[in-house]
Amino acid sequence: MLSRSTAFSDELSDDLRSARVYQCDASDPVSVERAFSLVRAELGEVDVLIYNAGSGSWQTVEDITPEDFEHSWRVNALGALVSSQQVIPDMKERGSGQIIIVGATASLRGRAKTTGFAAAKAAQRSLAQSMARHLGPQGVHVSLLIVDGVIDIPRTRKMFPERPDELFLNPDDIAATALFLTRQPRNAWTFEVDLRPSAENW
Amino acid sequence: MLSRSTAFSDELSDDLRSARVYQCDASDPVSVERAFSLVRAELGEVDVLIYNAGSGSWQTVEDITPEDFEHSWRVNALGALVSSQQVIPDMKERGSGQIIIVGATASLRGRAKTTGFAAAKAAQRSLAQSMARHLGPQGVHVSLLIVDGVIDIPRTRKMFPERPDELFLNPDDIAATALFLTRQPRNAWTFEVDLRPSAENW
Amino acid sequence: MLSRSTAFSDELSDDLRSARVYQCDASDPVSVERAFSLVRAELGEVDVLIYNAGSGSWQTVEDITPEDFEHSWRVNALGALVSSQQVIPDMKERGSGQIIIVGATASLRGRAKTTGFAAAKAAQRSLAQSMARHLGPQGVHVSLLIVDGVIDIPRTRKMFPERPDELFLNPDDIAATALFLTRQPRNAWTFEVDLRPSAENW
Amino acid sequence: MLSRSTAFSDELSDDLRSARVYQCDASDPVSVERAFSLVRAELGEVDVLIYNAGSGSWQTVEDITPEDFEHSWRVNALGALVSSQQVIPDMKERGSGQIIIVGATASLRGRAKTTGFAAAKAAQRSLAQSMARHLGPQGVHVSLLIVDGVIDIPRTRKMFPERPDELFLNPDDIAATALFLTRQPRNAWTFEVDLRPSAENW
Repeated sequence: MLSRSTAFSDELSDDLRSARVYQCDASDPVSVERAFSLVRAELGEVDVLIYNAGSGSWQTVEDITPEDFEHSWRVNALGALVSSQQVIPDMKERGSGQIIIVGATASLRGRAKTTGFAAAKAAQRSLAQSMARHLGPQGVHVSLLIVDGVIDIPRTRKMFPERPDELFLNPDDIAATALFLTRQPRNAWTFEVDLRPSAENW
Repeated sequence: MLSRSTAFSDELSDDLRSARVYQCDASDPVSVERAFSLVRAELGEVDVLIYNAGSGSWQTVEDITPEDFEHSWRVNALGALVSSQQVIPDMKERGSGQIIIVGATASLRGRAKTTGFAAAKAAQRSLAQSMARHLGPQGVHVSLLIVDGVIDIPRTRKMFPERPDELFLNPDDIAATALFLTRQPRNAWTFEVDLRPSAENW
Repeated sequence: MLSRSTAFSDELSDDLRSARVYQCDASDPVSVERAFSLVRAELGEVDVLIYNAGSGSWQTVEDITPEDFEHSWRVNALGALVSSQQVIPDMKERGSGQIIIVGATASLRGRAKTTGFAAAKAAQRSLAQSMARHLGPQGVHVSLLIVDGVIDIPRTRKMFPERPDELFLNPDDIAATALFLTRQPRNAWTFEVDLRPSAENW
Repeated sequence: MLSRSTAFSDELSDDLRSARVYQCDASDPVSVERAFSLVRAELGEVDVLIYNAGSGSWQTVEDITPEDFEHSWRVNALGALVSSQQVIPDMKERGSGQIIIVGATASLRGRAKTTGFAAAKAAQRSLAQSMARHLGPQGVHVSLLIVDGVIDIPRTRKMFPERPDELFLNPDDIAATALFLTRQPRNAWTFEVDLRPSAENW
């Protein structure tokens, strides 16, 4: 478990006994490289990488600063590239491996107020396509899991206190689809899969 | 198991002891309605409908006849509508049910030589979207499984005798993804998922 | 000017002195073939075909009948095929010609209440792609003009009496873009172009 | 005419008597801001901005460096944002203006060897969508012109000496479509339009 702040992952690791916690700023290539060196040294080669880092500014083109626009891109796109580059050589050598990138509705289109987030997610999706096409024939499975809705975590519950339960995606259920992707046999791989609550209006 | 000719499904039903065979021409609404009446009478309400009927003429706009163009549409699009309409009322009343439509690469774009097949598959995909959006909030899960490649069956092996094994999709593995779709919990449903061999050039 | 009922086109032809009126039911291949035979006999070969026939039922999957679903497809997709097949041989022989198909927002996605219209428009768009890819190298330009909004005609003004002027597309302005498509030189052809009012929320 | 090196634009300005040349590095926000300050001081408010800066590394995920990946994004996406932000305030105040962004096939998908270029172009396209949706209702027209093919310039002629003439897009013809976009009336604006040679295989 890699994260910028380890407060929450430390807590998680109390439950997930076999999980290890690493500090890592996805927007900073040096930090990413350092974290993966530690992972390799302590846990060995990576079999499955799930890239879930995703933050973004929700602003119009008039309000967003070039710095915010860049930061969104660093976390969602550059971080995905650098993290993947850390695990690809070992995966290629073994001829197997899984890279799952977690996208969002914004991966597919830019709305007036998603200038920074959507542009970053679109870059990430294109990157995932390039990776999947290049690495598939070498045995490495790259996929994009598009989460189209609000995930049920304490922060979103606070943001949307009136939102009915049925309009939240449960993190465990998202994880179940990610797990399924890792288990697909080589002759039937998914690149892109979307997930949303049944009650969602889309 | 519904099919136009029951020769193959009779054979399958020897292995699949609990499976029942019904004759049904997907391109003919009357035949579809009759088959589903029998299914309901003998097996009760349908929980999961997998619409896999799919044939198509592979011709350019110059070579295709209006009759071929219509037949592709009848099998892929009209048949999917009529079959779904047979099971939706019961599914809605129960507030649960699964309709999985099997698409193809041609669902996403029309090539020079896929005039009839791609137009029919595009109509089918649009229909699946309309159904998913309308039925999701009522508890009925509609999804589209896009098979992007050649399925490993005797007929395709004969058509492509030189094609390497790794470029065929195994039917069991396609079925595994369909089965997974039927088990997704209501707060995390997939609409569209693609499948292709790792070695495929796409 | 071909149309099912000639009442309006007769009226138009009073203004457009060089225009001729033909009765034609786009959903009926025999009627289409007869109309184009007349056109060829009276006016000679067709240089530009603009296929604007488009009607559709706006219903959910539960409400639409197979007949309505079929009728939408006949008008939007089958009619476009048959009309194009009437003009393609001459265009190919000359090595030039223009076929413009008029699509709609529904060409790109199926909503809950556009079951019939969107499926028909998706089939039409796929057909246009197949035609463009096949005919382009032979000198025939096929394009899709996606009208994303309400066109300013007496019927829509009655349907949406409160809608502000700025949310209507003017038919003349749509025609200007169609005209532009016909004038593109052979090394820079458009396949797909969208049009909407600046004030539209999309 | 803004460009990183002014050698070619100086030459052009001998022909285009009313054109002015400005040095500007699209990947550097400070340079972009400085150039537009000069433009405003010398020529007044900008009516039409055509953002045609586009370079990209053509490498797989294994070969591309984070620096190349970033540079592609700076030129194609960040530069488009910063340039647009320079002209939007005046355009909004006037309630009119045109921003045309020049995209490429790679705007729509990532191939194995377009890791950096396609991710940057995808970000640019998403940005253009966000801008178009936000600025349209305020009278500012943002559009994306997708050039799908090889442009006929000395550099590409050298790169592809065997390529037949008919597979090159003429810059003047691309410009004609850009000019057409600037003249569309407000009730019928295009967001996205593609251009390719008729002989192209796509």
